[in-house]
Amino acid sequence: MSCFTKMPNSIADLKNVVFWRDVLVEVLGTGILLTWITFSFVTFNPDHYQPNTTTLGLFVGFLVFILIETLGPYSGCHMNPAVTLGFFLNGHLSIARSIFYVIAQCSGGAGGSALVYALTPASKRHMFHAITPSADVSLAQAIGHECIFTFLLVFTALFLTLPSRKSVNPGFPLGFCVGTSIMCGGTYSGSTLNPVVALGPAVISRNFHDHWVYWVGPLCGGVVAFLLFKAITVVGDKFEKPNN
Amino acid sequence: MSCFTKMPNSIADLKNVVFWRDVLVEVLGTGILLTWITFSFVTFNPDHYQPNTTTLGLFVGFLVFILIETLGPYSGCHMNPAVTLGFFLNGHLSIARSIFYVIAQCSGGAGGSALVYALTPASKRHMFHAITPSADVSLAQAIGHECIFTFLLVFTALFLTLPSRKSVNPGFPLGFCVGTSIMCGGTYSGSTLNPVVALGPAVISRNFHDHWVYWVGPLCGGVVAFLLFKAITVVGDKFEKPNN
Amino acid sequence: MSCFTKMPNSIADLKNVVFWRDVLVEVLGTGILLTWITFSFVTFNPDHYQPNTTTLGLFVGFLVFILIETLGPYSGCHMNPAVTLGFFLNGHLSIARSIFYVIAQCSGGAGGSALVYALTPASKRHMFHAITPSADVSLAQAIGHECIFTFLLVFTALFLTLPSRKSVNPGFPLGFCVGTSIMCGGTYSGSTLNPVVALGPAVISRNFHDHWVYWVGPLCGGVVAFLLFKAITVVGDKFEKPNN
Amino acid sequence: MSCFTKMPNSIADLKNVVFWRDVLVEVLGTGILLTWITFSFVTFNPDHYQPNTTTLGLFVGFLVFILIETLGPYSGCHMNPAVTLGFFLNGHLSIARSIFYVIAQCSGGAGGSALVYALTPASKRHMFHAITPSADVSLAQAIGHECIFTFLLVFTALFLTLPSRKSVNPGFPLGFCVGTSIMCGGTYSGSTLNPVVALGPAVISRNFHDHWVYWVGPLCGGVVAFLLFKAITVVGDKFEKPNN
Repeated sequence: MSCFTKMPNSIADLKNVVFWRDVLVEVLGTGILLTWITFSFVTFNPDHYQPNTTTLGLFVGFLVFILIETLGPYSGCHMNPAVTLGFFLNGHLSIARSIFYVIAQCSGGAGGSALVYALTPASKRHMFHAITPSADVSLAQAIGHECIFTFLLVFTALFLTLPSRKSVNPGFPLGFCVGTSIMCGGTYSGSTLNPVVALGPAVISRNFHDHWVYWVGPLCGGVVAFLLFKAITVVGDKFEKPNN
Repeated sequence: MSCFTKMPNSIADLKNVVFWRDVLVEVLGTGILLTWITFSFVTFNPDHYQPNTTTLGLFVGFLVFILIETLGPYSGCHMNPAVTLGFFLNGHLSIARSIFYVIAQCSGGAGGSALVYALTPASKRHMFHAITPSADVSLAQAIGHECIFTFLLVFTALFLTLPSRKSVNPGFPLGFCVGTSIMCGGTYSGSTLNPVVALGPAVISRNFHDHWVYWVGPLCGGVVAFLLFKAITVVGDKFEKPNN
Repeated sequence: MSCFTKMPNSIADLKNVVFWRDVLVEVLGTGILLTWITFSFVTFNPDHYQPNTTTLGLFVGFLVFILIETLGPYSGCHMNPAVTLGFFLNGHLSIARSIFYVIAQCSGGAGGSALVYALTPASKRHMFHAITPSADVSLAQAIGHECIFTFLLVFTALFLTLPSRKSVNPGFPLGFCVGTSIMCGGTYSGSTLNPVVALGPAVISRNFHDHWVYWVGPLCGGVVAFLLFKAITVVGDKFEKPNN
Repeated sequence: MSCFTKMPNSIADLKNVVFWRDVLVEVLGTGILLTWITFSFVTFNPDHYQPNTTTLGLFVGFLVFILIETLGPYSGCHMNPAVTLGFFLNGHLSIARSIFYVIAQCSGGAGGSALVYALTPASKRHMFHAITPSADVSLAQAIGHECIFTFLLVFTALFLTLPSRKSVNPGFPLGFCVGTSIMCGGTYSGSTLNPVVALGPAVISRNFHDHWVYWVGPLCGGVVAFLLFKAITVVGDKFEKPNN
């Protein structure tokens, strides 16, 4: 695919101190994200008129927005293998960077959840649980749901980082891509849109049942997003004059 | 009306690949909008302290915002025949573009709802229902409500796309024109502000009872918005020096 | 006070078509604001887990934001006699403009509420009621509350329209000055922050009991905001070099 | 530490009228913040389906955002000793300014709470209470929680005020750093992220039990944030070319 002709060089990346800084930033960003999300398992109380998916959507939306604003200028602050896959397919990242980003995200995510686990007394640890599709949802439906919802996230990420969109600040819309999906479908498959968001809680609750669903769904969504993004932008590149 | 003197040429549009790309983007945008909205029929649970119109207003507001940010630079991302009518009256669109946009919106909207229908098991499909005015609201009231609420949306859209407002990002205010209207009046007529938002659920629930209300109300709102917009801007064009 | 030396000329205003356009825009903006707010009296249902002040704060916040974005470049879109008083004291408005703005706001506000009243069937009109302090709040407390909360609104409005703040878009923070005050204290005095928001419902419910509270409180808040604004900016004007 | 080489001069500060204006702005900003927060103790009613931490997170988030927008260009509008500590460590503030800011924040905070206390009739004053960790949380957990949550706030503040981030408006993300932390963990330790937010209610309820927790936790968070900020930026300063 022509998009790989401009792919950055992996060897150059691995020799660069800035590359390793970016990998550690990715660990840190994903770690903060999973610390907050795992912590909410202990504090959310649906019996106290706490409107679960509304609050969760708002709080995760704002958190993703803040992290992209803060750490985005370093590593891009993907915090999500599906986003990294989308940018890799579009030629933004070298193979080495893509692989180390996913490793960093998994380590950071598991580490963030583990930090919360360690700080929680044994008597309350039963409140941690893996994110799983709700009882009446088939696995195919959960995968379809995660795929469709992650599609919008990666699709938006690809468009908002186009050079022609420099005036737009991508953090807020991207944060609320996640937020709106949680508000819309959080009670269905869990609306992780992100394998790592499922990984952290799975690690600390030692429950990997159906965990693969949260890898297959989001990654498929990332591929679909890339293909549709390419189809739309290729027309403009060929037939439009560059705007501005 | 003088605004039509600058109307783009329909024939030139139909011969242009970019025009057809824009039509497909309109199908895609409206399709995503209706996929999310239709999906929420299955996941929203008012018995679980889910504050219906608050969550719905926030989630649709953020979704419209994200779609305008992402796809707006291509087709304008109207996703709404009433908005297309407003821009057509103001001379932004050729006749061909207006007609194909409305066809695209209807196809995309029905397609988005149908996709959710197909992915939902037969046992849960009874949760889909057409959007209808609440029981104690007369048809005239529902039309008036849809007209007034859509008026604000199209009115805002016309002002925020004026060349003198280039510094303002229209996606966020337009998204929350929809969001605020749902929060204010969602339990009354449904606050669609958009014929296509009523069309998708009507198709999959095969219930077109009172469906025309959601065409007459919003389209009237679009016409009123255009007339008031024209009345305000015409004074400035004649008597003010251009600002900046 | 020196701020009046730069006050615009009233006679010049009254002869100008653009001035009368601005007055009509003020009627329209306040009319839309009161239409939405009055409408929410009929649709809000506290029995249905509708979290009153949260939803109300969000919906009014977004509405004020949208109206300032849309109509602000014409009349300033004050929609509030307390804001007009603050800008008059700071020398932005002629005497004629200030008087006609307040008349426009009262007409628009009463008109907006009356429109909703007319469109509501007689059987539901009992749902309209004047905004009054809650039962256990003394009048002095209600005035103090309205004064403190309106203070923040006018204070913010004066700072965000300073020439040195051109890069900041004042609509969103001003909208959520109102929104945050409603969320914080809506169940106390009503958190109108605006005499006209109390006037509209008072007119249609023909209940002017304690109505003066909503004039005295907000207008005092506007005066206090101006005095503190002046105290802070005068130091910078005298002792700082102009920034940028 | 090298960051202190560029530290402003304390003596020059103390002789400057603008410095004392900034200190008074800090009193005013923290005073407004605590007035609103303390007021919400009287108006929030969890029995009335008021979703406590959601509403509180939204209302405090918007309030912090508005205050930073309005007063930030004068004193920086820290309103928080932990933020002042972070900026002091990074060399933004002289020793004198740091000390007087903390004194100003404590005075403003206590004053804001006292104002609300004075305006509340004796019969309702029992509703005021100190912010304390919830019953089943150990002090170590509460400190850890306050430390982790304040870390994100100060971390974000340090990055968003970097000269290379001039295009970003820090008020909104910083406000919602506080907002998202309240939504996530408000029912746990109280999520003050700020010693002064605990100080005001402690003063008026004369209850300083465990109050030190809200000084140790946030100040530790500020130090950790500074160290991680330094570790990330030092790599870029040494190995990257300046962007833009």
